[in-house]
Amino acid sequence: MNHIQAVVFDLYGTLFDVHSIVTECNRHFPGRGAAISAQWRQKQLEYSWLRSLMDSYQDFDHITADALRFTAEHLGLDLDRHRSRALLDGYLNLEPFPEVPAALRRIADADMALAILSNGSTHSIRSVVEHAGLAIHFGHVISADEAAVFKPAATVYRLGSERVGLPPASILFVSSNAWDVCGAARCDYQTCWVDRNGMPFDQLGQQPDLVVGNLAELANFIAR
Amino acid sequence: MNHIQAVVFDLYGTLFDVHSIVTECNRHFPGRGAAISAQWRQKQLEYSWLRSLMDSYQDFDHITADALRFTAEHLGLDLDRHRSRALLDGYLNLEPFPEVPAALRRIADADMALAILSNGSTHSIRSVVEHAGLAIHFGHVISADEAAVFKPAATVYRLGSERVGLPPASILFVSSNAWDVCGAARCDYQTCWVDRNGMPFDQLGQQPDLVVGNLAELANFIAR
Repeated sequence: MNHIQAVVFDLYGTLFDVHSIVTECNRHFPGRGAAISAQWRQKQLEYSWLRSLMDSYQDFDHITADALRFTAEHLGLDLDRHRSRALLDGYLNLEPFPEVPAALRRIADADMALAILSNGSTHSIRSVVEHAGLAIHFGHVISADEAAVFKPAATVYRLGSERVGLPPASILFVSSNAWDVCGAARCDYQTCWVDRNGMPFDQLGQQPDLVVGNLAELANFIAR
Repeated sequence: MNHIQAVVFDLYGTLFDVHSIVTECNRHFPGRGAAISAQWRQKQLEYSWLRSLMDSYQDFDHITADALRFTAEHLGLDLDRHRSRALLDGYLNLEPFPEVPAALRRIADADMALAILSNGSTHSIRSVVEHAGLAIHFGHVISADEAAVFKPAATVYRLGSERVGLPPASILFVSSNAWDVCGAARCDYQTCWVDRNGMPFDQLGQQPDLVVGNLAELANFIAR
């Protein structure tokens, strides 16, 4: 790998556990939380890609609400306004994965510039990061909303290197979403795949430069 | 609805049952056919959207093979070259849904121009349609390959109206894939959603002009 001067992180699924919403789902729909969370996330991703391709962009909050509405209809849930609000608010208070706070501190201590590049809206990214007390680590919080299209479109990754002020080859892009790693690799970033679930890597014609199981392993690699 | 002069069909899932491949999957991996088919189809769709967004186009045959490779790895299947070939060949011999042959005949008899607009490669579309003896009905067989991007990108739908030689508002676009209906609606086609499974319609900001349960119902509507 080349010399790395900055680390740019994906947010959902990489630093924060999207399935931490299961608890809130179970509160309103006992025993259905895991099924709701899985379908909700799948549709959220699909809608972000489809709207990007259809040139019919809406921000991630809008898409998250649409995906929840589909999920409720499909699973036959009585999703009234109150429950819908509670679940969507839950998305603003996701939990970071347990090793993330200490790992970010160690990576920042290694004189790295840290940034977030997420499909989330600026408002949502800030809510999640501040709620977890992690805002202090990030010099830049970059939302796909500024490009009005979602990852893995190249425009979004270019925003990242522009805002950080470094060429992508000097930046390590970190994501647990294999397709996101592939999108960044296509745009000449160095890439790290956080393989949290032992899944095979997606067959999209790209390979990560580095594979770790969690952020603590990444901190070890950088602190070396 | 406006006066319709042509009907343009999606292929996979609309005229032909992608899950008819389950039998071939079960032959090689007994009892695993349904799981293989479901994940294979899901990944095939995802890769088509992701490669389009990443500007990293490969044709649908390539993507279908990639999706099968991921599926085999994820499900722990011993996919040797022989089995891989047999399953991919199965995709060239999918079965039409049972009502499709008679329904196409009735729609053609109503003096409609018929065409196919599919993400499949030209070779695959022709194989599937000829194998089922349905080629005679279609004046145009249009592949996304000509646009080097997949539906729901607008470029692909524009190919359809250009090749048929009519404005999209005079064409009924028919698909069982809700996202495909939405893509066509964004490009000013009249649209028919074939709701084969009683699923909710996707929340992508569009609605179909007509909903039918199968192609026989569409033929009834057109013959009226």
